[in-house]
Amino acid sequence: MNIDYQARLTTLQNNLIENNIDIAMITSQANVFYYTGFNSDPHERFMALIVDNRNQEHTLFVPALDKEIADNASFVKNIIPISDEENPYVKLKDKLGETISHFGLEMKSVSMFQHNQLQAVFPKATYKDIQPFINKQKLKKSRHEIVHLQKAVDIIENVLADGIKKVQVGMTETELAAELEYLMKKFGAAGPSFSTIVLAGEKAALPHGTPGDRPIQKGDFLLIDFGVFTNEGYCSDTTRTFIIGEATEKQKEIYNIVLQSNQAGIKAVKAGVPLKTFDIKARNVIKENGYGNYFNNRVGHGLGIEVHEEPSIHENNDQIAENGLLFTIEPGIYIPNYGGVRIEDEVYINENGEAEVLTSFPKELQIL
Amino acid sequence: MNIDYQARLTTLQNNLIENNIDIAMITSQANVFYYTGFNSDPHERFMALIVDNRNQEHTLFVPALDKEIADNASFVKNIIPISDEENPYVKLKDKLGETISHFGLEMKSVSMFQHNQLQAVFPKATYKDIQPFINKQKLKKSRHEIVHLQKAVDIIENVLADGIKKVQVGMTETELAAELEYLMKKFGAAGPSFSTIVLAGEKAALPHGTPGDRPIQKGDFLLIDFGVFTNEGYCSDTTRTFIIGEATEKQKEIYNIVLQSNQAGIKAVKAGVPLKTFDIKARNVIKENGYGNYFNNRVGHGLGIEVHEEPSIHENNDQIAENGLLFTIEPGIYIPNYGGVRIEDEVYINENGEAEVLTSFPKELQIL
Repeated sequence: MNIDYQARLTTLQNNLIENNIDIAMITSQANVFYYTGFNSDPHERFMALIVDNRNQEHTLFVPALDKEIADNASFVKNIIPISDEENPYVKLKDKLGETISHFGLEMKSVSMFQHNQLQAVFPKATYKDIQPFINKQKLKKSRHEIVHLQKAVDIIENVLADGIKKVQVGMTETELAAELEYLMKKFGAAGPSFSTIVLAGEKAALPHGTPGDRPIQKGDFLLIDFGVFTNEGYCSDTTRTFIIGEATEKQKEIYNIVLQSNQAGIKAVKAGVPLKTFDIKARNVIKENGYGNYFNNRVGHGLGIEVHEEPSIHENNDQIAENGLLFTIEPGIYIPNYGGVRIEDEVYINENGEAEVLTSFPKELQIL
Repeated sequence: MNIDYQARLTTLQNNLIENNIDIAMITSQANVFYYTGFNSDPHERFMALIVDNRNQEHTLFVPALDKEIADNASFVKNIIPISDEENPYVKLKDKLGETISHFGLEMKSVSMFQHNQLQAVFPKATYKDIQPFINKQKLKKSRHEIVHLQKAVDIIENVLADGIKKVQVGMTETELAAELEYLMKKFGAAGPSFSTIVLAGEKAALPHGTPGDRPIQKGDFLLIDFGVFTNEGYCSDTTRTFIIGEATEKQKEIYNIVLQSNQAGIKAVKAGVPLKTFDIKARNVIKENGYGNYFNNRVGHGLGIEVHEEPSIHENNDQIAENGLLFTIEPGIYIPNYGGVRIEDEVYINENGEAEVLTSFPKELQIL
């Protein structure tokens, strides 16, 4: 299924007209990809999509060494390469002229340094934030995008199904993470969407822990939080927690509370209610069971081209849920020096305003 | 070998005193790691090391869910967690008071959005760029750091030695990349320092190409550009190019020109001369052999905690080379629709102002 880049650019351009913005300069990798199909990390080099509202011309500035790839991948065909010894801001001025009044920028992506460079070559311009508009445009995922995102979920579930067969007592967290990342590529992913989290035993209490030399032992929690990028540039983010060998009653209790919390959160998902509802419903299950102090983060976040996008599903977010949102529901209980459980699914609010769960990997406690 | 974080912080603080800066706010992951030993990607959450020059107090603000890891990893022990529903800028104001006159920021890391948030809570403050000072501080690598960086180089060379044994005709670029990244973890790396580049045949002409389904075939160039992060947080970046099965005279010619260029670049490396010298010496070999139009990027870049740091080794950089610099020398010839060769080494300017090459993997043409 092809993405309609022209439609995306037209939507942006209509917003520029409404807001009397002459030039939109899009610099984040994810947003350049969103509007052009060209997906490349420029590192510290300059890359920008220029949407010129004065003449409806679009231009993509790329590092010279990416020119050939951009030619092939980008919907915008007017591509200007910038060599390492050139000043990109001077080149921008040469292309656009000096008479720009209003620039639209992604203010969360443009650094103060870039802002100063722009001010030096366009001293009379003012700068408006188009990030909220772009985020809002990207917030609502089309069915086409869900097809891509479902593929990312399916790959990670195939990886998990094969990966847990490789778990052995004595294997380190890092070794299992390496196996899982190998399987990602085997199952056709471009790569991990973030550094794979494998945490055993007491380390599962760290919501953002890093795999290390800790060997997997009998009686351990085994928390696996991971995702992939597909070759088309969409990502997944899924967590399952297992127990090795034999589970204590307390481990089972904690696991089942998190499972009920996950289910309560998902059950609450629908269009028309505040996003905080999903967090509160999931959180209440954990609170009512006495573990409220052990769940200290929001219940979920949006994802799509990036593994963290809007919306943020937290207990103070009054924003009303709409059709087209895709986000995680991932409650957890994290007890320092003991262990932790997280169960993370991806949920889409579909065309009917109803929750559609993309994840299908079983959630009942599995002893490996 | 332990890093002396106190010494690093003292150096920064002396600079703050000289420049009459009240508060340094360090927000980039790499620089927080550099000054504290805590290495964590906060994603869109707020993270900042505050160096308070009014009372010599250091405070690390971290996402609440990273608190426990920060407690263990950070040299700075005064840690303030921020929950997802809190406003970090208000929390910053509560801690620091409103009377700050001069903020020091990394202007390449702080976004216009963050700048606006700061201005909202500290309306009277001015903002100075401390990025150049920090970059300069990080530019000169100590022998302790070189020990870590050498480890990152050694791991990638072990991976390459094992990895090329797995190359077979018919294998895709992606499959080989998966094997290589698996070997990275097997040899003790935390992970790849950037997405592994494996390019076969005509695709080797793309300096920033992405591995795909193209099968490796007899007569292909096979370009492998990759690196690792060690568990201690240091990276490597190395390229070797091979030929599969049998090489034509033209392939051998191109390979040997790039090899001579690489050697000429490295031979030029020493303290006391402009950095551009290294680029020009390497570039001249390619130009004199008639391939000047096929080498369109700088010859090298610094690296350390990040895979791209200062300095930039390009033909217009008049900065004088000093002891302590570590950077790549990586000339290439890239002929569209035909193929390409790059040979990349890491070179350190040591205590005697002489070049020390960290890379030791053989550079003579190998036919696989």
